[in-house]
Amino acid sequence: MASAPTRGEGPSPALVFDTLFAYQRTAALRTAIELDVFRAIGEGAADAASIARRCAASERGIRILCDFLTVQGLLVKEGTTYRHSETSALFLDPRSPACVASTARFLGNPMVQEPFDHLADVVRSGRTVLAGEGSVEPENPAWVEFAHSMAPMMAPMAAPLGVIALDGTQGPISVLDIAAGHGLFGIEVAKQNPEARILAVDWASVLEVARANAARAGVADRYQTRPGSAFDVDLGGPHDLALLTNFLHHFDAPTCVRLLERVRAALAPGGRVATLEFVPNEDRVSPPMAAAFGLTMLATTVGGDAYTFRELAAMYQAAGFADVAPHAVPHGPHTVVVGRVR
Amino acid sequence: MASAPTRGEGPSPALVFDTLFAYQRTAALRTAIELDVFRAIGEGAADAASIARRCAASERGIRILCDFLTVQGLLVKEGTTYRHSETSALFLDPRSPACVASTARFLGNPMVQEPFDHLADVVRSGRTVLAGEGSVEPENPAWVEFAHSMAPMMAPMAAPLGVIALDGTQGPISVLDIAAGHGLFGIEVAKQNPEARILAVDWASVLEVARANAARAGVADRYQTRPGSAFDVDLGGPHDLALLTNFLHHFDAPTCVRLLERVRAALAPGGRVATLEFVPNEDRVSPPMAAAFGLTMLATTVGGDAYTFRELAAMYQAAGFADVAPHAVPHGPHTVVVGRVR
Repeated sequence: MASAPTRGEGPSPALVFDTLFAYQRTAALRTAIELDVFRAIGEGAADAASIARRCAASERGIRILCDFLTVQGLLVKEGTTYRHSETSALFLDPRSPACVASTARFLGNPMVQEPFDHLADVVRSGRTVLAGEGSVEPENPAWVEFAHSMAPMMAPMAAPLGVIALDGTQGPISVLDIAAGHGLFGIEVAKQNPEARILAVDWASVLEVARANAARAGVADRYQTRPGSAFDVDLGGPHDLALLTNFLHHFDAPTCVRLLERVRAALAPGGRVATLEFVPNEDRVSPPMAAAFGLTMLATTVGGDAYTFRELAAMYQAAGFADVAPHAVPHGPHTVVVGRVR
Repeated sequence: MASAPTRGEGPSPALVFDTLFAYQRTAALRTAIELDVFRAIGEGAADAASIARRCAASERGIRILCDFLTVQGLLVKEGTTYRHSETSALFLDPRSPACVASTARFLGNPMVQEPFDHLADVVRSGRTVLAGEGSVEPENPAWVEFAHSMAPMMAPMAAPLGVIALDGTQGPISVLDIAAGHGLFGIEVAKQNPEARILAVDWASVLEVARANAARAGVADRYQTRPGSAFDVDLGGPHDLALLTNFLHHFDAPTCVRLLERVRAALAPGGRVATLEFVPNEDRVSPPMAAAFGLTMLATTVGGDAYTFRELAAMYQAAGFADVAPHAVPHGPHTVVVGRVR
């Protein structure tokens, strides 16, 4: 995970210091996004003075920031000029369709980040320092930020999720999209199956974002919304398919089972449920991104986790689903777990 | 610098997300140090329940924290038990003489860290958001913390620095140790040359730490201190050697030259000055740790930097030093730059 910044061989505390300084990497990237450095470089500003002018910043500040970003592999430096790395050109320049820079807003949201300033208290107590139910407290405005800013992170997962979830199903179907957020997953299913009708559930303020995205995708006429908590609201149905994306990880296992039972009750016989989750291996320490995600759930929830497939399968089975199977999403750290009403 | 947490080939935003989440690595390591997790594991606690008991923490919190540390390479997991990695055994277990865990205190000190919460403002203005002269404001209590907690990071550099700085000089010599901090460097010179006498300069509160360390090393009878600013206080002399460790990077080049002129005036003819610094290559983006250090100086000082050898040599020459030469410190990211009174 770390650079090897020391000379010579043998044991070195480099990983320790790399870790103690790692917060600076986050701060530097957020700052560059906030100051629009990647747009300036993409539009041709090359030396520190030119980038500084475009970003209304100091030359000293930009030079040191861009050098730091170069060390991190987020820019390339030649002489005294900077240009995009492959990563920054594709994923940080706002002119790129794959740009994920907006995700810095949600990932730097106080709800996500502040508990890490009190992580020792979190580990002592075993639950978030956030009040009430933590990140899933009703109407938490962070989820509007999520819906607005996280779509670019999730967009590459939408098409594979749709293929896995639909599994070739054609014709008119009803699809329940729990905790729809930006709505991308339900919208993708509606695009892949032109006779699918979507019912999206989330907080009212979040559903505004999803509806706007559905309209932009041209599926508004098959896109309905139902505001409220997935634990309380009438889920309608019977549906043929339920999407449960990036949601179960916020809750402890009994709560997940309770939610899955509600979902099953809203599905037609033979109906299917598909999650999208960070699913670590059974060792819980690999692969890195899925395994590391557990810490975010420790910090921001009361009882959530990054569940292994065995744990998810047990929840599915306890809630009355069978044929539970994992499907790795290509080119991403996510896994889709599908089950069928028993 | 980053893990590759995605499956499959081709461009991936993994580095971007790794960077946006990097602050969690710092929080996790600081938390484990604060809760004494590495001591508990070193003393034999192996599963999450046992570690939690010893650390007065929750089992859920410890399990997720230790899994995260394992992902980072800071622990090893076998089944459901944890043990030290080579790194944590040597550098994080408080029972190891090479333990550097205390450095988390200075590196997490508000003076060092808070400016990174306002890094966009820093880059805009080109200087720290800290008041006055930033980290070098007179009597800043952070330097007492530095003196107490950073010695383990600097200890491995002391012996090589002493060898380079003394360059075989035997017999009675007078050594000026500017910004002595923990005092380790002057103390090491006193140990290598039993006739060397040290005059250590720093804030009064910091010199208490240095004097205690000198007494512990058995060199108190050859160790004198002079409280005050290196820019104002009488530096005594004439000295044969001046140590200027981890200090020049806090100031802009004209200020460094002014200080070096004061140091030269306190040296005997033929006297030598030796700095210890993070010295990046002339490209300013390698090696990683030395180059990345510039951002800390941007964030915490008015005009400091991680200077290249060419820049340091120019300062030395402007202040009247000749024969300026760099000496890489083995097994560390630091460089000693030596000059001789012209």
